[in-house]
Formats: sequence, structure tokens, C-alpha cells
Amino acid sequence: MRNGLEKFFNPTSVAIVGATPVEGKLGRIVLENFIKRFRGRVYPVNPRYDEIFGLKCYKSVSELPETPDLVVVIVPAPSVPSIVREAAVKGVPAVIVISGGFAETGTFEGEKLEKELKEISKAYGIRIMGPNGLGVFDNYSGVDTFFVPEERLKRPPRGHIALVSQSGAFTCMLMDWMAYHGIGLAKAISYGNKVDVDDVDVLEYLAGDENTKVILMYIEDLKPGRGRLFIDIAKKVVKKKPIVVYKAGKTKRGGVAALSHTAAMTGEYTVYKAAFKQAGIIEAETFDEMMDFVRILLHQPLMRGNNVFIITTSGGVGVMLTDALIDAGFEVPRTPNDVREALRKVFPPHWIVENPIDLTGDAVDEDYIHVLDLLIDKPYVNAVVVVVGPYLPRFKGIVVDYLAKIRAEYRKPIVAITIGGERIMKIAEKFEENGITVFESPERLARALKALYTYSMIKPRGE
Amino acid sequence: MRNGLEKFFNPTSVAIVGATPVEGKLGRIVLENFIKRFRGRVYPVNPRYDEIFGLKCYKSVSELPETPDLVVVIVPAPSVPSIVREAAVKGVPAVIVISGGFAETGTFEGEKLEKELKEISKAYGIRIMGPNGLGVFDNYSGVDTFFVPEERLKRPPRGHIALVSQSGAFTCMLMDWMAYHGIGLAKAISYGNKVDVDDVDVLEYLAGDENTKVILMYIEDLKPGRGRLFIDIAKKVVKKKPIVVYKAGKTKRGGVAALSHTAAMTGEYTVYKAAFKQAGIIEAETFDEMMDFVRILLHQPLMRGNNVFIITTSGGVGVMLTDALIDAGFEVPRTPNDVREALRKVFPPHWIVENPIDLTGDAVDEDYIHVLDLLIDKPYVNAVVVVVGPYLPRFKGIVVDYLAKIRAEYRKPIVAITIGGERIMKIAEKFEENGITVFESPERLARALKALYTYSMIKPRGE
Repeated sequence: MRNGLEKFFNPTSVAIVGATPVEGKLGRIVLENFIKRFRGRVYPVNPRYDEIFGLKCYKSVSELPETPDLVVVIVPAPSVPSIVREAAVKGVPAVIVISGGFAETGTFEGEKLEKELKEISKAYGIRIMGPNGLGVFDNYSGVDTFFVPEERLKRPPRGHIALVSQSGAFTCMLMDWMAYHGIGLAKAISYGNKVDVDDVDVLEYLAGDENTKVILMYIEDLKPGRGRLFIDIAKKVVKKKPIVVYKAGKTKRGGVAALSHTAAMTGEYTVYKAAFKQAGIIEAETFDEMMDFVRILLHQPLMRGNNVFIITTSGGVGVMLTDALIDAGFEVPRTPNDVREALRKVFPPHWIVENPIDLTGDAVDEDYIHVLDLLIDKPYVNAVVVVVGPYLPRFKGIVVDYLAKIRAEYRKPIVAITIGGERIMKIAEKFEENGITVFESPERLARALKALYTYSMIKPRGE
Repeated sequence: MRNGLEKFFNPTSVAIVGATPVEGKLGRIVLENFIKRFRGRVYPVNPRYDEIFGLKCYKSVSELPETPDLVVVIVPAPSVPSIVREAAVKGVPAVIVISGGFAETGTFEGEKLEKELKEISKAYGIRIMGPNGLGVFDNYSGVDTFFVPEERLKRPPRGHIALVSQSGAFTCMLMDWMAYHGIGLAKAISYGNKVDVDDVDVLEYLAGDENTKVILMYIEDLKPGRGRLFIDIAKKVVKKKPIVVYKAGKTKRGGVAALSHTAAMTGEYTVYKAAFKQAGIIEAETFDEMMDFVRILLHQPLMRGNNVFIITTSGGVGVMLTDALIDAGFEVPRTPNDVREALRKVFPPHWIVENPIDLTGDAVDEDYIHVLDLLIDKPYVNAVVVVVGPYLPRFKGIVVDYLAKIRAEYRKPIVAITIGGERIMKIAEKFEENGITVFESPERLARALKALYTYSMIKPRGE
């Protein structure tokens, strides 16, 4: 499923047109990004300099000593088409145009420049990403055309999420947020005005990308005439890895805002919604759902039935969870008689052995283990939620090793509710590190589990 | 609206029956709580000791040198009725029974003990809170019968939220969570089995409590026959301060779980829902909404119309917010011509002057001020949302002083979206400290603003 986008993510050489040593300029930030983390060859291009940061600087793309795999363009819009043409003539396969000042301005001049880029791409077969986007951040190859420096946009640790977004600023927010929360990123793609490379191309590429395990997309619109293809490609992709989409411009008024923002024609939301469903794409309807869904899809095994068992230490949270799970379409089955009797024999009389099984404030790690030993291998158990509170005097969180073990052995999702302060945050961190996805909100857990269940119905078994 | 609950929260003297120096015992934890923070007189009661932690210990309640305002009982269930009777005979007005082992066990013996307590309360007019609850935490008077020590349940800073909850463990989780997030608490009430004091009494009391500005309730059920009164009282209370309720046991299956948990007969959720609405109670349907609603109701002025203006630095978040606000029933009006022209004159051409007004990544603090100067006094502006991103190079967050000033001067809600890492977290903190309620999720912001708007329609003007 390679489609000519490989060089955007894994080039061996990159030319940066508009590179500069001038403090604060985008051309400097991008050059510094590459010097810092990219392991291939980097060529600054700027007729005003002979050398920048110790690198020989070239007057133009045509003067470069080799044909670079990727050219990044950061110059005023009117000069962009001629530079891209020059690159095309030299045989460059991929160009990222960072510069703004094209169709998004709504001016005739901007439209004209964008049309020129389109024509060059068609005539030479050169792939163009942008204009008016952040371009590509690849956490493995070190490609990083995101022109916001580290102190204002922390790069997340390496991970397996690919973020594809029609909003550059939102991409920055989310990446900075992910870095803060320690959530790993494989790559981020901000394709701007989509003069050539669009969602369909990116999706196709990501399907074959080994570092990408979940695809998260923020979309305002699809390019005209690409809807059908998007669905067809998505259908294939979701057989390999989940796609989570947040659609912006759902309402008419939101559509007007999107038109101002990216000149997007957002169209009828109901049409998108139906298309996502048909394609097997998981739709995140809220900001919270975006990351909740991605987190659970990344770390939990598929869920092969809709029965959920709850092991709680707060009756209240047990009730909240039951409501939320039922509301999401799950079953919270009664504890079968044999298990109930086995638990009744060993547990104090005030503990509740009915699902939600309530170990109360007296629970120790071993009590969770005791319950799970009886339940985890049963065919009527498809997922387990454990609830941990800060008040437990003798709970140490060591149950996490056991949870990780049985999750791997029985391939069933195990997730947790952890509500509290510092002590519980540390336990939550330990859970996350061991692949037990944690939530504070019972309702968000239920909706995330629902996303996992929905995807499990889509994904072929044994893959 | 005083109803005999005053002594639970502001006693001048307290006797703790079951006080003990034995490490780990509830009677020790509660005694230590009072020694640490309560400024009135404390009397340990336990026939086995002459002195505990330097305090003279009494053999029984009847031997106390005065009639205490409040007696806390932490002894095995079978001994509880006689102790409560002894207190009643001595003229004690208020008793908190911490002990479990009553009706919640579902045993005949437990039911019988609980009935005895009911009879004593009726016969002597003594008010009984509990059994099987945490009792009272009052952050101003220092009453603290919560038997979980500080290291497992951090007490939140003083504040103006009153938390009323049918789930003790959930109360602990939420308090620990609030402490971690620096959210202030006035008092928490965990009334357990509600043998006497119930939601109605507590609500009535909190209406007159000066330290309480917002009431947050977790309810599984109301006591039989108290529904009508609950609504009547709530109707009066909400004229003074908002009530936010989370109802657990919404689904049939959740109702079964609640029955196991607190023997609650949760009843038809639709009936509760309608009753809440009729009473002017704001219902939080999710865990997140509980604290979102409380935070916005605490800090924002009432909202006297449904027009919202957005000042963003991310077009994407502007679109997300527009969708979410429209979905919640708000208007996101177009920027009026005069304001649009005034902005167009001073702002660069690529900035969007249409609502959502998009200052893009180039915004500085003064740009927000410039927009707000033109908008805040206009009658068509009922609330403002500002969006702040981590990527802004010259944004310092100093706009917060201005925001706080105009919020106070014009009495209009000003809230913010802050998505990002450490840098943005610090700005968010500054915003919160200055009364600008922050959210990460556009959808949660919209729903919280909706709660504020709903309450604004209920609360009489000028109060």
C-alpha cells in the first residue's frame, strides 16, 4: 500500500528552502529541528548565505550536489511555485510547502498560486504536501517541519499513534498535551490546504507504516470527489489498525466557522457520520473521546463479547459504572452461582459477591487476584473493570503485575477506574505502564470500552 | 431555615464514644482528627482508658462533665442503640453513628438495630446521622468524623462546595481528587443509612450555611415518602444557591447494584429526572460534569442571554467550540458589522474577525484585550470563551488581569479553553486563580456553560 509518500517520512536527504540563521524565523526553527534529530543529509537553501550553523548553504535547489528526497519550502507565497517547479525538474519526489498565503486567504492571487502548485504536481508527478500546514513530524526518522520550537511545543515520546489533522494549531495543542501526559506519538501530519496530498493518501500510507498502530484524524472536510475513495481505503485500513476520527464542522454554524478557518466545505454531518460507520471508522464525538479511544485501542486486546465484570472497592462507583456500561450497550451479568458461592466462602459477610463485586474499603491486592482467578478464564467474561480508591489501607497496587499477566494470557481487556490524588495517581501511572488503561470517569470508561468493542467487531480474528 | 442540624457542623463540644489509642482503629483516627483541627472541647469515651493522648477519658456518655453538642459513636452495632439512648437521655442534640452492621447487611438483626435507632430519635427528638456513613467533615469548624487518615484521604483546602453523598467511598475519592486539584471544599456529609437525617434535612441546612455556595449531591435514592418534600425544599434552596445532583442507579441493572450497595430503592430514573428539573436542580449526568458544573457555578456570574463569543488562536478549536455550543443550545452570533470593521482596520489580513474571532498563532495578550474592549459591554454578548495555545510565541498570560477585571465589572461569564503541556497548565492555573474557569474539552465547556445558563434562568435577578 505504498503510494509515493515514503519520502515525506523517511527521506535520506532534505533541502530546506528558506533556511536562515535569523532568530525567530520559521526557516531557522525548521533547520534546527533537522539538525537536532534527523540522521540523513540536510541542505540549507538560501541565496543570502554561504553557510548556516556550519552547514554549506546553497543558492537554489538546482545547485544542490544531489537530488534530495524531500524539499521543505518556507518562503513567501509568490516565490513558492517557481521553487517547487525547480525541485520537480531536478527530480525531487516530495515537497512540503509550509508557507501560507494561498487559497486560505480567499484572494484571487492566493487561489492562482495554489492552482499553479496543483498543475506542477500533475505535470511532474511530484508529491506536494501543503501549503499552509505544519507538514510532517516523524518521531522515528527525525523529519520535523513543525515550525514551533520545543519550548512552545514539546515533542511527545516515541509511540504508536499517528495524528492526522486539518488544524495546525490544534495539532500543536494536542502534541504538547500528549508530551505532558507521557502519551507516545509515531508521527503527526498537518497537510494544510491539501493541494495534492490529502487524507486519502495519508491514510493509505499509514496503513503500511509499522510504527503506526492507531490513526487519529481531525477532519473538517474531505477534498471534493474524494469521499468514495476515502471510505474504500478506510475499509481496508481498519482491517489492519483502527482509525479514530473527530469531525469538526458538525453544525451549520460550525460549518461557517470551518469555512473561515480552512475554506472547508464541511457538508452534511449526517453524511459523514454514516460514511464513517460504513467504513468501520470509530468516531470520537468529543475532545475527551479522541484520546480515550486511542488509548484503549492501543493497549487493550480485542473484546470478543459484551459481558463486563466489575471489581470495585466503592459501591457508588460500582453503581455508576453499571449504569454507564448498560447505557453503552454492554451487559453486566449477575455473578454465576458457583463463583458467588466460592467467593462467599472466603470473603467477609459485608463484601458483595454480586457483580459489581464490592471488596469495600478493606480490600488488599490479593482479594482482586482471588476474584479474577475465578473469573478471567470464563467464556462469559469479556472484559474486567477494576476500581481502586485512595482510602484502601493495605492496597499496594502490586496487583498490577497479575493484571498485566492475565490480560496477556487470556487476551481480554482489563481497564481501571482510579479516582483520587497523588497516591492514586501513582498507582494509575503504574497501571498504565503495565497496559491497564485507566480512567477517572465511569462514563468515559464505558464509552471507550464501547469503541474497543465496536472495533473488535470490525477487525478480523487472529490479526 | 435552621432545622436542628447546626450541632453536627458547629458543636462547641464533642464526645467520641469508642475513642482509642490503638493504632489503625477508626476510633483513634477520628479522635486524632478532632485533636488536630477542632477548636471546641473533645471528650474521649471508652471504659478501658483513663486518658488518651493527654485527654481525660470517660467511662460513658452519662459520666461526661457536660452535655456535649455532638456525640460520635464508633462501637460495634449491637452496642449502638443503648449508647444513643444514653446520649438522648442526657439531652445531647446530635449523634453521628459511624458504625456499620445495620440494615445494609440485609439481616434481621441489622434491621432491628436500625429500627431501634429510629425509635430513639423519634422518642427523644435527638437527631441521628448514620449509621454506616462517614458522618461530617466541616472544613471551617474542624468537625471531622471521616475515619480515613490524611495519608489516604487528603482534606481539600477551604472553599465553598458542600458535598452530600450516599456513597462514603466515592466521597473519599472525590475529596482526595479535589485536594489534588486544589479545589476548595466547605463541608462533606456522608449520611449512610439515613435512619434519621436525610437529603431533605441536609439540603435545608445547607441553604442557610454561609460557607456553602454550591451544593453537590450524589444520590442513589431518597427515603420513601420524602420525594415531595425534597422537591419543595430544593425549589427554595435553588433561589439562593445552585444544587448539582448526580443520580446513580439510572438503569434497571444499576438499580440492582444500588440495592446491593446501600439497599437503595432507586426507582424510575425518569421520575427523578423530571423531579430535578421541576425543582430547578442541575443534573450532572457524568462524573466529569459534576465537577465541571460546580466549578463554573462557583466562579462565573450568571448568564443573562444565550449569545457566546469566541476569541481563539486555533481555528480548529474555534470550529469545535462552535459545534459544541450550538449543540448545547447557544447562539454563536456573527460579529456585528461595526465591530468587524474596527477589527479589520487593526488586525493583519489573515486574522479572522468573524465569530469565532481567530487571532492565529501570532496573538499577544493585547490582541485579546483589543477584541474584548469592543465587545464586552455590548448587550448581544452574554459570555466569552477565550482559547489559548502553547505555541503562541509572545503570549504571556497577562491578559488574565484584564479578564478578571471586565468579568467583575460587566458581570458576564468568561471561560477559557487551555490545551497543552506545562506552559499552558501554568497559564490555566493563573486563569483559575483569577476566576476564569478553564476547560480542556470544548464539549465539556459548552455543557458546563449550559448548566450555568440553566441556573441563571432559575435564580432571581439581583441576588
